[in-house]
Amino acid sequence: MSNDTLRDLSQNPLVQRLGVPRIPVLRRHVPGAPLLDGPALVGTVGGGTFADAVRALLKNEGVAEAAEGKVAGVVLDATAARTLDDLAAVQEFLTPAVRRLAPNGRLLVLAPEPTEDPEAAAVAQAFDGIVRSVAKEVRAGATANLLVVHPDAPPAALDSSVRFLLSGRSAYVDGQVVHVGVPVGPEQDPIGMDAPAEPVAPLAGRVAVVTGAARGIGAAIADTLARDGAVVVAVDVPAAGEALAAVANRTGGTALQLDITAPDAADRLLAHLRERHGRVDVVVHNAGITRDKLLANMDADRWNAVLAVNLRAQLVINGALLEGDLLSDTGRIVCVASTSGIAGNRGQTNYAASKAGVIGMIRALAPRAAARGVTVNAVAPGFIETEMTARMPLGTREGGRRINSLRQGGLPVDVAETVGWLGQAESGGVTGQVVRVCGQSMIGA
Amino acid sequence: MSNDTLRDLSQNPLVQRLGVPRIPVLRRHVPGAPLLDGPALVGTVGGGTFADAVRALLKNEGVAEAAEGKVAGVVLDATAARTLDDLAAVQEFLTPAVRRLAPNGRLLVLAPEPTEDPEAAAVAQAFDGIVRSVAKEVRAGATANLLVVHPDAPPAALDSSVRFLLSGRSAYVDGQVVHVGVPVGPEQDPIGMDAPAEPVAPLAGRVAVVTGAARGIGAAIADTLARDGAVVVAVDVPAAGEALAAVANRTGGTALQLDITAPDAADRLLAHLRERHGRVDVVVHNAGITRDKLLANMDADRWNAVLAVNLRAQLVINGALLEGDLLSDTGRIVCVASTSGIAGNRGQTNYAASKAGVIGMIRALAPRAAARGVTVNAVAPGFIETEMTARMPLGTREGGRRINSLRQGGLPVDVAETVGWLGQAESGGVTGQVVRVCGQSMIGA
Repeated sequence: MSNDTLRDLSQNPLVQRLGVPRIPVLRRHVPGAPLLDGPALVGTVGGGTFADAVRALLKNEGVAEAAEGKVAGVVLDATAARTLDDLAAVQEFLTPAVRRLAPNGRLLVLAPEPTEDPEAAAVAQAFDGIVRSVAKEVRAGATANLLVVHPDAPPAALDSSVRFLLSGRSAYVDGQVVHVGVPVGPEQDPIGMDAPAEPVAPLAGRVAVVTGAARGIGAAIADTLARDGAVVVAVDVPAAGEALAAVANRTGGTALQLDITAPDAADRLLAHLRERHGRVDVVVHNAGITRDKLLANMDADRWNAVLAVNLRAQLVINGALLEGDLLSDTGRIVCVASTSGIAGNRGQTNYAASKAGVIGMIRALAPRAAARGVTVNAVAPGFIETEMTARMPLGTREGGRRINSLRQGGLPVDVAETVGWLGQAESGGVTGQVVRVCGQSMIGA
Repeated sequence: MSNDTLRDLSQNPLVQRLGVPRIPVLRRHVPGAPLLDGPALVGTVGGGTFADAVRALLKNEGVAEAAEGKVAGVVLDATAARTLDDLAAVQEFLTPAVRRLAPNGRLLVLAPEPTEDPEAAAVAQAFDGIVRSVAKEVRAGATANLLVVHPDAPPAALDSSVRFLLSGRSAYVDGQVVHVGVPVGPEQDPIGMDAPAEPVAPLAGRVAVVTGAARGIGAAIADTLARDGAVVVAVDVPAAGEALAAVANRTGGTALQLDITAPDAADRLLAHLRERHGRVDVVVHNAGITRDKLLANMDADRWNAVLAVNLRAQLVINGALLEGDLLSDTGRIVCVASTSGIAGNRGQTNYAASKAGVIGMIRALAPRAAARGVTVNAVAPGFIETEMTARMPLGTREGGRRINSLRQGGLPVDVAETVGWLGQAESGGVTGQVVRVCGQSMIGA
């Protein structure tokens, strides 16, 4: 059942009269659409210094601030909160603000990093509990997310993340916590608070490799990055050649038939990039396989096949990229992990090992890559509507769709938009992060 | 419905014939019971150096190693695993081992900390995915947990944690990850691998304060610590005086009627400890309240009451303890957090803020307290059968009981046993940790 079918069903008057809970129709990004589809409310607690930058950003985007009535977005700069009294002021601000939040609204809280002071550390962590709770309370497609801001991060470092989390691009990112630090790299372009509105093509001029691009989430990533201006190098196994060619034709990029587990895979990938594009800016490790089996019945073939595709290939290719000179100094490596790699999953010790492994890998690579301006992050999809989930038994599928705060599965484009945000040159303050695209699935660890 | 009723029901032949899933009867600690109720299997991958200490511990406990047949416990020392080939060997060891695991068995994996090397970091994190997955696979009351071992930790530092996680004390601790480091404090007692078997009273001679001790989880903590040899100082509000006196009489300790939010609460607590006991070794911050309300309808009173009891009182008392000289040089502070503080919960922004705050607090206090030999940890209960949960609507209650890998709610004693483990002088290698007591509840973040 496609998401459109779900949508139609939930809006059917008979279904509504029968009292079946309405599944919200999520606001998703459409090129040219405004950042928010209504006014915003911006506040501070304890004297935060980022609110002005957020206000400037909103003004440039043509988003009004509204003193009363419904709002499409709420941003609270609580980066200066240190005490329980500050936290009381947070409640005082948020309670009326949440009441005013419109359907598909966005609540975004900026919070400090924990410090050595126990009270300030408690307060910093408290935002985690607050935002994850309120994300479970808001309804009708509204989301709540938290940006934890490094004390030395310049206001402009938040820019791409604030845009993403307020926009329709983050439709299925809910209840998440993302750290924003000082942008990586030797020096920063002066992207100030009076920067122009988001360009129509935020990835213009960037070369992006996407593995597993022939179908499903990978194809959506290729499409979305191309829509945002990137030249896409679509990679998939030779057996997927026809579908791969279709993606490459559609996106206007190049195609590379490649088994990423082959011994010469990194060499062939780098050779293609060098010869056809001369560089690469965004590397999306999306290719992945499952070979489910209870651990008690696991065999070496299933284990090794999953680890080879989902983890070893990424390790080898990342190693080659970071040793070489093709990856630009605003390089962005984005790896597709999974909520199974965070919470574990019955029947998926091999898959969970590979996806947890991806998380371990990006955390180790991030500090190494930072010096040369490269970020390394992971996205962890929850229940995303694909051919794979369409083949699930009905109960499993419906369960997977409903145990999240948005009461529906996500779409491949939701993962793709998240990859696109992390792939921007402007997202240099975000590295070593795992961003779940799961509608705040209740499944965790 | 009590756990005994559930147990009776699940063992009723009619219920069994009807095919209602059987709820496993968990093995719980009984004084004098063996560490494991059958033989164990111990293995290494990549040349781990902790297996010998584990074997010595098991030998001292009278647990045999078994080359074949069912085993009550499996311990894999994978602390030397660095490569994907090592990980393949982990699967090779675990697959037949899991097949041999008896009902109520214990699977315990010792894994390395992530290093800077991307492959080794990936492998280290992979254990997280493996153990959380296999914990969801094993049945009949069996659990799987992970100890992540600091490279400089001496083998003896693992002792109390290995005992706990193999024993019936950890009945409701499942799918968890605990870090063990170099024990805190200026110097270590030489507790070697040939240490005697676990003493009947592992908390003998220790003075333990328990707040909120009059009933529920707090009373169970008081009872359990006293059973294990501690002198218990039971603290609760004056209104709970009668129940509090009963706990103090039962445990043979002292009672202190105290509103922990009063301005002089820390002074009065310290005065009681000084006058009646001359010291304190274990401090258990268990007192907590809920005042549930959606954030949109929250008021300052509900917010502040919850934050004052659940967080501010702990901050004040911990501050006084760490500034003063009453807390011994094997002091153990254990704070009761909640899965709501990790995952958030609808209607509980205030409670989740306080419990997330507790987590932030213990992480900030742990390094401060380490120099004087004090650890600071949190336990995060999931669904625990108490008077509070008995008052829940049936659907909520049954849901809460079932969405975990052990398919039942935990008992207050399960939280208490976890507190007791962290309270031991021998647990100095465990600090700054949040240990969930949740049967691997699927609810997470």
